[in-house]
Amino acid sequence: MTYFDEAITSSLDGNVATAQTHPKYANMVGPFGGITAATVAHAIGTHPQAQGRIAALTVNFIAPLRDGAYTLDLTCVQTNNSNQHWTVTGQQGEAGTTTSPLTATALLVTERGQLRSSEVPFPAVPAADQLQPAVGPRELEWTNNYQMRFVEGGYDAVMAGPREDTRSTYWLRHTDERPWDYASLIAACDSFFPRSFLRAGTPLPAGTITMTTYVSADVATLEATGPDILCTAHAQFFGSGLHDQSAHLWSHTGELLAVSHQLVYSKL
Amino acid sequence: MTYFDEAITSSLDGNVATAQTHPKYANMVGPFGGITAATVAHAIGTHPQAQGRIAALTVNFIAPLRDGAYTLDLTCVQTNNSNQHWTVTGQQGEAGTTTSPLTATALLVTERGQLRSSEVPFPAVPAADQLQPAVGPRELEWTNNYQMRFVEGGYDAVMAGPREDTRSTYWLRHTDERPWDYASLIAACDSFFPRSFLRAGTPLPAGTITMTTYVSADVATLEATGPDILCTAHAQFFGSGLHDQSAHLWSHTGELLAVSHQLVYSKL
Repeated sequence: MTYFDEAITSSLDGNVATAQTHPKYANMVGPFGGITAATVAHAIGTHPQAQGRIAALTVNFIAPLRDGAYTLDLTCVQTNNSNQHWTVTGQQGEAGTTTSPLTATALLVTERGQLRSSEVPFPAVPAADQLQPAVGPRELEWTNNYQMRFVEGGYDAVMAGPREDTRSTYWLRHTDERPWDYASLIAACDSFFPRSFLRAGTPLPAGTITMTTYVSADVATLEATGPDILCTAHAQFFGSGLHDQSAHLWSHTGELLAVSHQLVYSKL
Repeated sequence: MTYFDEAITSSLDGNVATAQTHPKYANMVGPFGGITAATVAHAIGTHPQAQGRIAALTVNFIAPLRDGAYTLDLTCVQTNNSNQHWTVTGQQGEAGTTTSPLTATALLVTERGQLRSSEVPFPAVPAADQLQPAVGPRELEWTNNYQMRFVEGGYDAVMAGPREDTRSTYWLRHTDERPWDYASLIAACDSFFPRSFLRAGTPLPAGTITMTTYVSADVATLEATGPDILCTAHAQFFGSGLHDQSAHLWSHTGELLAVSHQLVYSKL
């Protein structure tokens, strides 16, 4: 069992899934947000009422998870012909002193329709094997689970000073070459360092407040995806102490797998 | 009082806001989704615990609202230093037979930070007064509340046959010239007809399943916005009987007001 699969594991009792933070996915404060989002998506999938695959997930990061156990209260709000709506409330702490570190809503869909296409062009990039894995901030434990081969906007770009173009593009691989599935794709959507680092030319306190991911890949597309997926993201706006991040994830053959947006707290 | 303000009105009793569908905002089935989203945002703002202005809103459209009253159960999950998280559950029907037509999560923020800028360029477009308002499908009652001055991708483009570029760009004005504020900006994010119409070259059954909007405008920016805002959107992917829509809304002076994403059910 990979660290990733260990980290997203939860046990279900009725509508309550109990998960655990995992030391291999620790971030600066609390766990890597991507692993929390993946844990939510995975937990819904383990529920006996779950029908279909994840198509949309919004996770609101309300307070840092503390190391240890937390619960996810899963509510299947409605099952329609081809889709199913869920709400999720996270809880952590002892009775009487619980806090809600996260809320989420999710959409599952069963496959239908004929057309499968994308309107955004696959970026012109070198193949993954022509690039070296970046050496990132290894004190962030979660980053050791990934190899990132930057095409643009890597850690060196942060250190080169402030810039107005905050795009990062990299090939992403699980260090242990775990295959890509829905849970790991959701996590990958949060694998970018904050866009404010590039804007400011230095790391600054920052954290994802809310992230919404739409998954375009069907099961066959995901299963045909090799070890490396292409991830690209940029900020569209900075303001009110926030910035957004708009991300696209692609298979190595240029199929769009997911689009993801997040709003980030930043010190700019 | 404008039709828009009538339509978003709700009365609060404890944590439950009671709203009404409005005949002037009727869509094909149920009300225009934008007015429902605006009603949610507005209801949160009327709650005595509300602190700050809306920065993020996700609305999940689970089942069509029927004409008449519905309630919004508002929960303030947590107030942090500069932001506040809310969850919302819609209910409609008599006791014992209620359904949940929508769920939502919202983020309010208080203004902070220094930097205000945008990384996406304002499109090169003619001024609003150089364009004629489009004559749309006036049987959709809600569309009569808006004037749309199309730059590209209008109703004529739908009728010209299938196309791979699904972008629409138009200047949007309230027919009664009501000023723009947070609620009306949220509604405007859903003012696009489904991108599948352009892709198919014909109107087809379609409906928004989930919409997430991030509002970049602070109060001063919104108050300085004239009667016309520029709206542009395109689909990024079609697949699994779904497509997405990525939208940007701008002031007439080229300030980015909001970015919005939605996932749409389509017959493609």
